[in-house]
Amino acid sequence: MNSEIISVGTELLLGQIDNINTRIISQKLSEIGINVFFHTSVGDNRERISSVFKIALERSDLIIFTGGLGPTLDDLTKETVAEVLRLELNYDEDTLNRIRAFFKKMQREMPENNKKQALVPEGAITIPNENGTAPGIILQTGEKIIILLPGPPNEMEPMLNKFVIPFLRKRLSNEVIKSRVLRFIGIGESSLEQKILDILKKQTNPTVAPLAKQGEVTLRITAKAKSEKDANELIEPIIQTIKERVGEYIYSYDNDPMEAVVGRMLIERRCTISIAESCTGGYLSHLLTNIPGISAVFDRGIISYSNKSKTEILNVPAEILKQKGAVSQETAISMASWIRKLSGTDLGVAITGIAGPDGGTPLKPVGLVFIALSTDSGDLCEKYLFNGNREAIKRRSALAALDLIRRYLKIR
Amino acid sequence: MNSEIISVGTELLLGQIDNINTRIISQKLSEIGINVFFHTSVGDNRERISSVFKIALERSDLIIFTGGLGPTLDDLTKETVAEVLRLELNYDEDTLNRIRAFFKKMQREMPENNKKQALVPEGAITIPNENGTAPGIILQTGEKIIILLPGPPNEMEPMLNKFVIPFLRKRLSNEVIKSRVLRFIGIGESSLEQKILDILKKQTNPTVAPLAKQGEVTLRITAKAKSEKDANELIEPIIQTIKERVGEYIYSYDNDPMEAVVGRMLIERRCTISIAESCTGGYLSHLLTNIPGISAVFDRGIISYSNKSKTEILNVPAEILKQKGAVSQETAISMASWIRKLSGTDLGVAITGIAGPDGGTPLKPVGLVFIALSTDSGDLCEKYLFNGNREAIKRRSALAALDLIRRYLKIR
Repeated sequence: MNSEIISVGTELLLGQIDNINTRIISQKLSEIGINVFFHTSVGDNRERISSVFKIALERSDLIIFTGGLGPTLDDLTKETVAEVLRLELNYDEDTLNRIRAFFKKMQREMPENNKKQALVPEGAITIPNENGTAPGIILQTGEKIIILLPGPPNEMEPMLNKFVIPFLRKRLSNEVIKSRVLRFIGIGESSLEQKILDILKKQTNPTVAPLAKQGEVTLRITAKAKSEKDANELIEPIIQTIKERVGEYIYSYDNDPMEAVVGRMLIERRCTISIAESCTGGYLSHLLTNIPGISAVFDRGIISYSNKSKTEILNVPAEILKQKGAVSQETAISMASWIRKLSGTDLGVAITGIAGPDGGTPLKPVGLVFIALSTDSGDLCEKYLFNGNREAIKRRSALAALDLIRRYLKIR
Repeated sequence: MNSEIISVGTELLLGQIDNINTRIISQKLSEIGINVFFHTSVGDNRERISSVFKIALERSDLIIFTGGLGPTLDDLTKETVAEVLRLELNYDEDTLNRIRAFFKKMQREMPENNKKQALVPEGAITIPNENGTAPGIILQTGEKIIILLPGPPNEMEPMLNKFVIPFLRKRLSNEVIKSRVLRFIGIGESSLEQKILDILKKQTNPTVAPLAKQGEVTLRITAKAKSEKDANELIEPIIQTIKERVGEYIYSYDNDPMEAVVGRMLIERRCTISIAESCTGGYLSHLLTNIPGISAVFDRGIISYSNKSKTEILNVPAEILKQKGAVSQETAISMASWIRKLSGTDLGVAITGIAGPDGGTPLKPVGLVFIALSTDSGDLCEKYLFNGNREAIKRRSALAALDLIRRYLKIR
């Protein structure tokens, strides 16, 4: 099955937003063995939407639209698709009720123009939208499948995963594409590449593709086979070889983000934790509290931004702040051990550093970060020098702190 | 001049990388008044590159390719473009010398396959590549301009800025496109539309386009004119009219994120602040500490996740927690006023709520959030019911808290 993704929205053509949807959909289609041969973006213009749709109908079996399903006048996708396919639009009572319920739940009045979102082309399957008002739409005409999804990624992605991918899976031949993503920390992309160069060069099926992200590297291993079992049998030996060579840097074999890996470990081991942050400003706590169920083990966090707060609330001796400075191993350890004591948790974690752009000195440059872990068997501290802008340094620091917790829990 | 961007690379179609080039080029073309009407992505496949190029030649005056100019066998853009236009490829001595010099500077041997990069279609202008080996290529055939640029953004972008944009500017009439983006909070996309429906319907120049984001809405006003000054004169009256009708919901006239607007207000007014968060888990503090210079006013944050931490560190009376619950107006106000007292700051802000997916009850459903602000002239609390998943509720809560601070500072 050959597919094409059409994203609708003038903001894309003006370069004002990234085309996140197209990447997410491409990834998911590839995973289930559907070829994506074209991406097209077009503005909120009826004539041009119509023309790209007609081209897509000529060359693709599956066409997925995103965007242009909103309640406003410049949302034209559904209307144009129906026009090209000569389908009537009718009010769908279920959808209208769902939209009404959505506004009711929000305790808001439903504006009149939202009614338009309940118009559905005849013969369509509707996909409920749990995070917004525009339903998704699946149309089947002859051999072609046409799917319309809303533009906001937080609405689009759950609909894709819960409805569209299962729907398409049922209609596919037996070939599957299976991907596994290994995530690495503590090793750069080129060092990783050098250690597995022979594997990268030999790659045909499975293929192995490295990708550098902020503070980490991923390796995607993709196999095509008749069944998921066969695909796994192609992938598994490659993973084993990679693991033997660079296993120490792998923190996930299933593309889980670091905070999910660490959050799960903490919850499973009932290991309670408290966090003291300075330069990361709450970002470490934020990442960890994205994990459902974390409240069972995460007791509290303190963001001691000012020096005053460091002494007042984290009991860092004024002596240490004066002699060693707020960004020092001594301060980090003092913060971690005090937050652990104060909270009565198993672990205490602390981060102190210079996120920039100002505040750096020759001896303590921007990017210098100390990360401490306090445990019942002692305290330890790691020193890092990160590069990048303020947000990159915050991100790299939080990732490194999570990794420190992960490594401790593994050997504990 | 109507343009189209074609990006070539199978990694795009597999969803393995973001299409950064297309966004950068779109932005730059819009800035100099060139309409971008289509984006197309296609894999490393001669037949399909040829087909999308032929479609582009039918509908666009300017076609910019990125990617597929590398030295390897699957780099096919130049070869395919030359074939479609029936142009011969000849070795360009200048380019070959430049590639040789590049390898010499890197102290590396030039691999034989890099010679292919010095092949140039007859009649082409070449663009030197300062950060790599593939030259850019400009072709003019009849009324059409076709430009080929390499795929790596760090090679493409300097070539775009130094050569392509100046080259295109010379061929243009003096038209510029200017955009302003207004950001709204506290009003939904459809309610906003209803209040400015006549403006949206009349739109020709400037155009006015709404866009819903998580917890906020933006309005982009885009004008075409002979000069930036003329464009501004077209935009300004529209902004004034919108301001008169819905100004109370506008928090930025220049597309600044909420945390930047609030951070700047706090810094300018030397208004110190401390934050107590529960369900947002540090996200509010994280957003605010993304703003450089915020350390002058942000004293500390406390993430009181457990009830125990709420009493111990934020002094929330056990009585209140028992009778009203952790998610209540009373708890929120108690948290905000204590963090303010504890830190000695001008403002204290607190968020408590249920981010889900678990923990909701019929009386206190997932998405219920209380946000309190404590000031020297009194305390206040707002109640919200947000929809979406855990991360969406965190995001909407933090935005609403920032907005509460913003509204307070405006009238103070």
